[in-house]
Amino acid sequence: MRLSSALAASAAVLAFAAASSARADEGMWTFDNFPIARANQALGTNIDQAWLDRVRLSSVKFGGCSAGIVSGEGLVMTNNHCVATCVANLSTQAINYAETGFAPRTREDEVKCPGSSAEVLTDIADVTERMQRAGQGLSGQAFTQARDAEAGRIEQEACGGDPNKRCQVVTLYRGGQFKLYTYKKYSDVRLAFAPEDRAATFGGDLDNFSFPRFAIDAAFIRLYENDAPAQTPIHFKWNASRPVEGTPVFVSGSPGATQRLLTQDQLMTIRDVVLPMDQLIASELRGRLIRYSEEGERQAFEAMDPIVGLENTYKRGVGRMRALTDAQFMAMKAAQEADFRQRHAAANAGAANDPWTTLAGVQPAVRELYAPMALLEGGTGMGTTSVAGGSQLFNWARTLVRGAQERAKPSAERLPEYADSRLASVQTGLFAERPVYPELEQIRMEWWLSKTREWLTVDDPRVRGLLGRESPEGLSARLVEGTKLADPAVRRALWEGGLAAIEASDDPMIQYLLSIQDETRAVRSDWEARVEAPTNRASEQLAAARFAAYGDAVYPDATGTLRLTYGRIEGSDVPGQRFGAFTTFAGLWDRATGAAPFDVAPKLLAAKDRIDPDTVIDMAVSSDTIGGSSGSPVVNEAGEILGANFDSTVLTQRNAYGYDRNVNRSVIVTTGAVTTALRDVYGMERLVEEMGGE
Amino acid sequence: MRLSSALAASAAVLAFAAASSARADEGMWTFDNFPIARANQALGTNIDQAWLDRVRLSSVKFGGCSAGIVSGEGLVMTNNHCVATCVANLSTQAINYAETGFAPRTREDEVKCPGSSAEVLTDIADVTERMQRAGQGLSGQAFTQARDAEAGRIEQEACGGDPNKRCQVVTLYRGGQFKLYTYKKYSDVRLAFAPEDRAATFGGDLDNFSFPRFAIDAAFIRLYENDAPAQTPIHFKWNASRPVEGTPVFVSGSPGATQRLLTQDQLMTIRDVVLPMDQLIASELRGRLIRYSEEGERQAFEAMDPIVGLENTYKRGVGRMRALTDAQFMAMKAAQEADFRQRHAAANAGAANDPWTTLAGVQPAVRELYAPMALLEGGTGMGTTSVAGGSQLFNWARTLVRGAQERAKPSAERLPEYADSRLASVQTGLFAERPVYPELEQIRMEWWLSKTREWLTVDDPRVRGLLGRESPEGLSARLVEGTKLADPAVRRALWEGGLAAIEASDDPMIQYLLSIQDETRAVRSDWEARVEAPTNRASEQLAAARFAAYGDAVYPDATGTLRLTYGRIEGSDVPGQRFGAFTTFAGLWDRATGAAPFDVAPKLLAAKDRIDPDTVIDMAVSSDTIGGSSGSPVVNEAGEILGANFDSTVLTQRNAYGYDRNVNRSVIVTTGAVTTALRDVYGMERLVEEMGGE
Repeated sequence: MRLSSALAASAAVLAFAAASSARADEGMWTFDNFPIARANQALGTNIDQAWLDRVRLSSVKFGGCSAGIVSGEGLVMTNNHCVATCVANLSTQAINYAETGFAPRTREDEVKCPGSSAEVLTDIADVTERMQRAGQGLSGQAFTQARDAEAGRIEQEACGGDPNKRCQVVTLYRGGQFKLYTYKKYSDVRLAFAPEDRAATFGGDLDNFSFPRFAIDAAFIRLYENDAPAQTPIHFKWNASRPVEGTPVFVSGSPGATQRLLTQDQLMTIRDVVLPMDQLIASELRGRLIRYSEEGERQAFEAMDPIVGLENTYKRGVGRMRALTDAQFMAMKAAQEADFRQRHAAANAGAANDPWTTLAGVQPAVRELYAPMALLEGGTGMGTTSVAGGSQLFNWARTLVRGAQERAKPSAERLPEYADSRLASVQTGLFAERPVYPELEQIRMEWWLSKTREWLTVDDPRVRGLLGRESPEGLSARLVEGTKLADPAVRRALWEGGLAAIEASDDPMIQYLLSIQDETRAVRSDWEARVEAPTNRASEQLAAARFAAYGDAVYPDATGTLRLTYGRIEGSDVPGQRFGAFTTFAGLWDRATGAAPFDVAPKLLAAKDRIDPDTVIDMAVSSDTIGGSSGSPVVNEAGEILGANFDSTVLTQRNAYGYDRNVNRSVIVTTGAVTTALRDVYGMERLVEEMGGE
Repeated sequence: MRLSSALAASAAVLAFAAASSARADEGMWTFDNFPIARANQALGTNIDQAWLDRVRLSSVKFGGCSAGIVSGEGLVMTNNHCVATCVANLSTQAINYAETGFAPRTREDEVKCPGSSAEVLTDIADVTERMQRAGQGLSGQAFTQARDAEAGRIEQEACGGDPNKRCQVVTLYRGGQFKLYTYKKYSDVRLAFAPEDRAATFGGDLDNFSFPRFAIDAAFIRLYENDAPAQTPIHFKWNASRPVEGTPVFVSGSPGATQRLLTQDQLMTIRDVVLPMDQLIASELRGRLIRYSEEGERQAFEAMDPIVGLENTYKRGVGRMRALTDAQFMAMKAAQEADFRQRHAAANAGAANDPWTTLAGVQPAVRELYAPMALLEGGTGMGTTSVAGGSQLFNWARTLVRGAQERAKPSAERLPEYADSRLASVQTGLFAERPVYPELEQIRMEWWLSKTREWLTVDDPRVRGLLGRESPEGLSARLVEGTKLADPAVRRALWEGGLAAIEASDDPMIQYLLSIQDETRAVRSDWEARVEAPTNRASEQLAAARFAAYGDAVYPDATGTLRLTYGRIEGSDVPGQRFGAFTTFAGLWDRATGAAPFDVAPKLLAAKDRIDPDTVIDMAVSSDTIGGSSGSPVVNEAGEILGANFDSTVLTQRNAYGYDRNVNRSVIVTTGAVTTALRDVYGMERLVEEMGGE
C-alpha cells in the first residue's frame, strides 16, 4: 500500500522525470562513476570510495552470473541456477546431484566445475581516445575490424599471456566510452555446495519471474589457486539476521545487457522482428524438449538443464514483448526520446543529420539481416536466444574450425573472439570435460537446421549450402552419430594441430563446419558492414549528444561487466504486481501441493520441524537488475551480505528498455534462508562456521 | 516485370485510392451485391445475373473449405487438403490412403467421409431490420443474447427440422446487415478420389504459402441423396485446356474471415496480444508433435494430419504478424482510417462520441480477456488457433455436457450454438465415426492445460479450478485413459440421454467437463458483456458510417459464407515475391531432391514418361482470397472451371487486414494438371469422362 498514492501520478512523472537523467534508485552504474553522493542522499547512507573498492574486490563474475566472496578462504555464494550446468555435468542418471543436492562433508570433497572460471575486477582504465582514434575516417566493415583489432592489441599489451589475469576492452554508452577492465582470474573453481534442485526451483517455470517466491536459489563455489583454496582477505561479512523492510541495499554484479539507450526505431525493430522470431523458434524447441523429456527417465534427466535454461530465456522474452507493447511504458520511452532530441536540436541547429535519423536509416538492413545473422552466426546482441548451430558438438566444431583458420592470421586480422588476448578463454571452454547426450544434440541440431530453412526459406542459397540435398533430420543424425568431438582429447588434439589437422580431419562435423564457412562468414561480414558499423558510429554520436545534454549523471547500458545498483527492501503495489517484501518458510509449506513443480524437496521437507516457520526465505528489493545479475551479492551500508539476487518479476522485464521505479523489483534469497538450509537441512555447518556464523 | 512500373507509385496510390472504396479486383463480394458492371469493365467480360446464379448453384461449401460441382451426378472438385482429415479417418497405419492415394475403380467403391456434409447456397433474404430490432435498447450480455435468440428463431422458422436444408443468419459488415442464407444440405458425402498425399503437398510446409508451386492439391467428393449420387444438372463445365496469362477469372467460394473493417486500435490489439499468444503456443505444440512423430511409424502416422493443419495455421499467422509490422502496409491502413474518420466527422459535427473512440475504449478489456477467453472457450473470432481443450475427446465431452445443459432450456435462452436450428449440425459432428489416438489426445490436452496455466498464471482461480491439485500431465493422462467417449455409440447414448444421463455418467471426461462449467461459462459471459456486445454495437455504427461515406460499393468482411471475387491469371513482381504465372511438370521434376518433402510421390514419379513436361500444374491469379477459399472453383467468363484455388503466398496474408493488388496472389491447381493426374497417373479416366473430358 505504501506505493499506491504515488502511483496515480506515476505515468506523468515517469514521462517527465525519466526523460532527463537517472532518477533515484535507477541505474546499473560502473564502479568508476558511481553517484556516491546521490545514493547516500537518497538512501540516508554514508558509503565512500573505500567501501566501493571493498565491495568491488569482494564481487565475482562467474560465467554469465555474479557472485560474492564470503570467507577468507575463497568461498563464494552464487545462485543454484548458476551452478546448474556444473551440477548437471558432474551428475549421471545414477548419481544425480540435482536430485540429492551436493553437500560434501569436507573441503577435500569439493569437485571442480568443468570449464568454469571466475573473475574479480581489479582495475579500470580509460582507453576511449585510443579506441576512437583506431576507427577514425573508417566506415563499414573496415571500421569494425580496426576497432576489434585495437581492442585485441590493448588487451594483449596489458595482460600478455598471464593465465591469472584477463583483460577486456569494454564498450560503454554504446561507444561513448571504452574502458580496459583487468580481472584476477581463477581457472580452478570447485563446487562447494548445492541444495536439492527443487529447493532452489520450487514452483519451477511457473513461479519463475514472480514474487512471492519460495526458492532457496543459492549455492557455493570455492576459488582455488595452485590447487589450494584461494586466500581472499577482502570479502563480504555474512549477516544472516532477519531482514528489515526499507533497509537500503546495494547490489553488486554483472548485469548482462540492457537496451535502454536504443532509439524508438531500434526498439520497434526488436518488437517487430527480433523478439517474435526468437520467441517462436524457442517455443518450438521447448515443445520438442518437453516431449523428449517425457519419453523416459534418461531423457528426462538429459533434458532437465536445457529446458530450465530455455524456459527462463523464453519467459524473459515474454516479459519483454509485453513491455514493448505496453502503451503507457512506450509513451514514457517516446517522451524521453522527444526531450533528448529537442535538447540536441536546440544545441545543434543546422546540423545535416542527427544520429536518430541515421539509426532509422539502418533499420531496414537490420530487419533484413537479423534472421540470417541470428540463425547462422548468433551474437547479434539483440535477441533473447542464441540459436546458431543448436548443438554443443556443432559449437565445438565451429570453434575448432574458425580457431584454426583465424590463428593462421596475425592477431589484428582475426575475428575478434580469436584475438591472442582471448584464446585462453576459448581453450578453457573447448577443453572442458562435459557429458554429451547424442540424442539431445541431434534434436537441437535438427531443430536449428529446420528453423533456419523455414525462416530463410528453402530456396535461399545459404540454406542450400547448409543442407545440400539432405534433410535437417538426416543431416543432423549423420553428423552427430559420426563425430568424435564429444571426447575432449579429440578436441584438444584438433585445436593443437591447427589448420593442417582440421583440414586433414575426417570427422564429419569438422568437415561440415569447413564446408559452410563461406556462407556463414559472408552473413557476418554483411551484418558488420551494413548493421554493426553504422549502428556503432551513430550510437557513439548519440552517446556524445547524451553527455552534452545531461552531463555525466547518466549510466551506460549493461554489458555483462561489473555494476553497482542501489535501492531498498520493499514490496510492490502496482496493478498486476502486489506483494509484500518477504516470504517465509511457513508460506512455502502452504504453497506446496506435492505435485511438481510445487513439491518440496525431500531433504528440505524432512527438516521441516527443525526450521522456524517465520524465517524469511526470499525478499524483494527495488534495485535495478537484469539477467546476469543472478547471484549478485546484496549488501548493506556496512558492506555485509544480506542475500543473493536471483530473479525479478515478469513486469520488471521492461527494465531491458527502461527503468520503472514502481514496477522494478528484484528477488533475493536471504542469508537467513541459506544459513537455515546449510545448518538445518544439509549438514553443512562447516560452511556456516567458515563464514563466521553462529 | 509487368507490374514494376506501377510499383514505384504503389504506396502513395494505395494509401489514397484504397482509402475510399474497393478498387479494381478487390473484394470478396456477396452474390447479392456483386458489382457486375465494374467487374465487366475492369476485366472486359460480359457476365450477368444468370451467370451469377449458375455459378452460385454450382459452388459448394464443404466443411471449412469450398468446392465446385463438375458433373451432373454430384461429382465435386475440392482440394486434397480439404479431404485430408477424411482420408486420415478412413485410413489405418496398414492401409494408409495418404500414402497410396484413394482411387476407387468404380463409383460403388466411393466411401463416405465420416461426419462430413456439403451445402449449396439456394437463397438469400434480408433480415436486418428484424435483427436490429431485437437488440434495440439493450447492452452488454443482454444485447448479445437477444440477438442470438432472434437469429435462432429466424433460422428455425425458415428451415424447421428439414434435414436437407440449413438456415443461417449471417452477420455482414460487422452488424451493418443481417442476411438469412438458406442452403441445400447434403449429409452423405463420399470420397471419390484423392491423389497420393505427397503429390498434393510437394514441398510440404516449406512450399506452403508460396509460389512457384508444384502441387496437385485436388481431390473429388461426390454428393449423395437417398443413397444415390445426387442429380446436379447445374454444374461447372470442365475446361482442361492450357491456361492463358491475363485471362479474367472469378473465384467462387467461402472465405473464412477477414478483419479489414477493424479500426487501427483493434488491429494493434491483434498485433500486440492475439497473434503473439496464439503463435507462441501453437509453436510449442508443433514442437511436441514433431518430436512425437519421430518416435515411431505409428506416431508419425497419427501426427501427420494434425501437424499439417497446425503448420498451415501457424505459417498464416507468421504472414499476418509480418503484415501488422510492415510500416508501409500499416501506413496505408492508417490513411484509410484517417480518410474515413474525416468524412464521418464532417458529416457528424458535434456528435458526442464516434465509433472509433468507443472501440478504442473496449481494447483494454480485449487485452485483458483475450487470453482466458481463447484458452478456456475459444471462438473469439480474432486469433489464428482454436486452443480450448486441445483434444477431440475434450471437445466431444464439452458438446455433450453443454448440449445437455442447454437443451434443458428453451431454444432462445440457450448458448447460440445449441439453438434448435443448429442441433442437426452438432449431432453430425458428434456422432461421426472417427479414429481416436489416445497418446495424441493426451499430448494435446496436456499442452492445453499447461499453456492455460502458464498464460493465466498458476494462481488464477480458474486455473486452480481446472487443475485442482493435479498436474497437466497427470490430469490429462487420467482423463484420456479413463474416458469411453472414443466410442460413437457412447457419445450417442449420452447425447440422447440428456442431462440426466450426463449427470449420472461416471465417465471421467464428462465429470471433468461438468466440474469446470462455472469457470468457463463465466469467462464467456464476461467476454460477451465487456467485449463482444460493445464491439458489435460500435461496429454496427461503423458500418452505417461506412455506407454513409462510401455508398454500397463496399464489401463486407469474409464470414465463411459464399463470396465471389474477380481478377486475372498473372504472376507477381514485387520485392520478395517475383514469379511468373505458371509452373509445369518439368519444374516439378527439377525441384525434386528425393528428400522429403521434396520427394515426388511414387505413382506420380512412375508416370513421368506419360506426362507432357510442359503441362501447367499450378497458376497464380490476382483474385482476393483467404483461408476458407481453399477448393474454390476458378471460373472463366464462360462459366467453365479452370482450376481449384488452394493457397496464396506469405505476403498475401496481409489480405486479412487489407487488399494489396500488387502483392495479393492466389495459387490455383489447374484442371489440366488434375486431368493429367486422373488419366495418366491414377487410372481414373472414368471421372474425366464423367466430366465430359476427352
